[in-house]
Amino acid sequence: MSPRSATTWVPGHITGFFAVERAPDPLATGSIGAGLALRNGVTVTVTAPGDGTITVDGRERVVEPAERVLGTFDTGVSVAVDTAIPIGTGFGVSGAIALGAAVGANAVTGATRTENELIGTAHRAEVEAGTGMGDVVAQARGGVPIRLTPGGPEHGRLDGIPARRRVEYVSYDELSTAEVLAGDIAPINAAGRAALRTVRADPTLDCFMTASRKFAKDADLLTGRVAETIETVEDQGGAASMAMLGQTVFAFDRDLSDAGFDPAVTRIADGSLRID
Amino acid sequence: MSPRSATTWVPGHITGFFAVERAPDPLATGSIGAGLALRNGVTVTVTAPGDGTITVDGRERVVEPAERVLGTFDTGVSVAVDTAIPIGTGFGVSGAIALGAAVGANAVTGATRTENELIGTAHRAEVEAGTGMGDVVAQARGGVPIRLTPGGPEHGRLDGIPARRRVEYVSYDELSTAEVLAGDIAPINAAGRAALRTVRADPTLDCFMTASRKFAKDADLLTGRVAETIETVEDQGGAASMAMLGQTVFAFDRDLSDAGFDPAVTRIADGSLRID
Repeated sequence: MSPRSATTWVPGHITGFFAVERAPDPLATGSIGAGLALRNGVTVTVTAPGDGTITVDGRERVVEPAERVLGTFDTGVSVAVDTAIPIGTGFGVSGAIALGAAVGANAVTGATRTENELIGTAHRAEVEAGTGMGDVVAQARGGVPIRLTPGGPEHGRLDGIPARRRVEYVSYDELSTAEVLAGDIAPINAAGRAALRTVRADPTLDCFMTASRKFAKDADLLTGRVAETIETVEDQGGAASMAMLGQTVFAFDRDLSDAGFDPAVTRIADGSLRID
Repeated sequence: MSPRSATTWVPGHITGFFAVERAPDPLATGSIGAGLALRNGVTVTVTAPGDGTITVDGRERVVEPAERVLGTFDTGVSVAVDTAIPIGTGFGVSGAIALGAAVGANAVTGATRTENELIGTAHRAEVEAGTGMGDVVAQARGGVPIRLTPGGPEHGRLDGIPARRRVEYVSYDELSTAEVLAGDIAPINAAGRAALRTVRADPTLDCFMTASRKFAKDADLLTGRVAETIETVEDQGGAASMAMLGQTVFAFDRDLSDAGFDPAVTRIADGSLRID
């Protein structure tokens, strides 16, 4: 009596700052940090039976973490994704597809995993694919997730900033999460841990933005055009930072518009998944 | 720069089964069990400055857990509640008001508590008032929360059933949570622990309903009219159980309608709070 098709919506997620913590168990591996779940997200429709094909906005794509998720189910399914956010530019799209694929596959194959188990399945797939370290658990929480300890639901502890706000962003280009994480992670981790201490002492959206901006600078992750955009916003009295990890600049309220940019507009997402 | 007024929506919550676990610390006290977060919920608007008045659907009411929550903030506020669900009949309205009051008071007083801290504030207030033991943490999660261990966010572990469905209910009368919990809790706890084991072994909505029905019977909590209604639904081939703790019968899909009742209709809620 399993339905043939199941649709799940997952929010986008911008990480403001992070530090990577690795462990032998992928479910205990991940990142600490904080970010924004966004109303601009992805809609994932899983259909059974299927041949494992994943299409994103109508085009077949290789989405390794989602393929790893599908490999954990006994029945073959197909996945169709509609996304309101660009891939590879710091919105956690790969994690969102992995999580939506997990929830949908569970529904259509008659598997009986719990939410925590499905979040763990998607988190593990992201870690093993090297495409993300903390988006999945953040997307499953929604709002403004603070990742206190790394890993899937059995390991990672989360908190959140209880505030919502308009978010603007401009995206320039992709940035490989796997390549950045393969580089020298020590300065990133030092800056990420410092930012987390700062935000835990003052858990507000303004402090989140300030800490994210300092992290981007201290971790030396700013690319040319991203740095220029942030500086232009700051010259106009606003605040902005870089989505980790993509060539995307985000700001609250109208700070990008007011500095003359033509940003996409969304809002911090309430809640987390929507399961149809 | 705090806003003068803040509005938060909190889902209703029907508990299907539970067991109470007390500890010296109210934040470690609570119930294990499982339930349904509902799209029928309460909208809580907190305004500062205010004199501590709480109005529900336009009438001033004493809502002890919400008053306890307001007492933890330095600034006086007023609270106005619109509710789509009846008070005292097993929908967790007191917990929803307490949680909405906590989030709203945090916003309008310029306090900087985190989501976990606010959930803990509301949970503690419910436990101390004796009005609820697990609704708050369930409402803060949304969906179909399974409460694995008792208490606020620092103590309680949650999981969830990843499914959503139409919910029907009929409500007859109030039932005092405090009075039931003051009675012989041993048979309730034994039945609640057994039901939780059952649902953890088969985390599906059908199993949740079956386990809830068995719990209501084994814990000897069924009142006359509630028992009759459930039996009428079962005579028609459906399934229903009792909302803990109120004289309310709930069912999935159309099981109450099909048995000739005229139920209220809602749906399992995606996500949790909505913060404006």
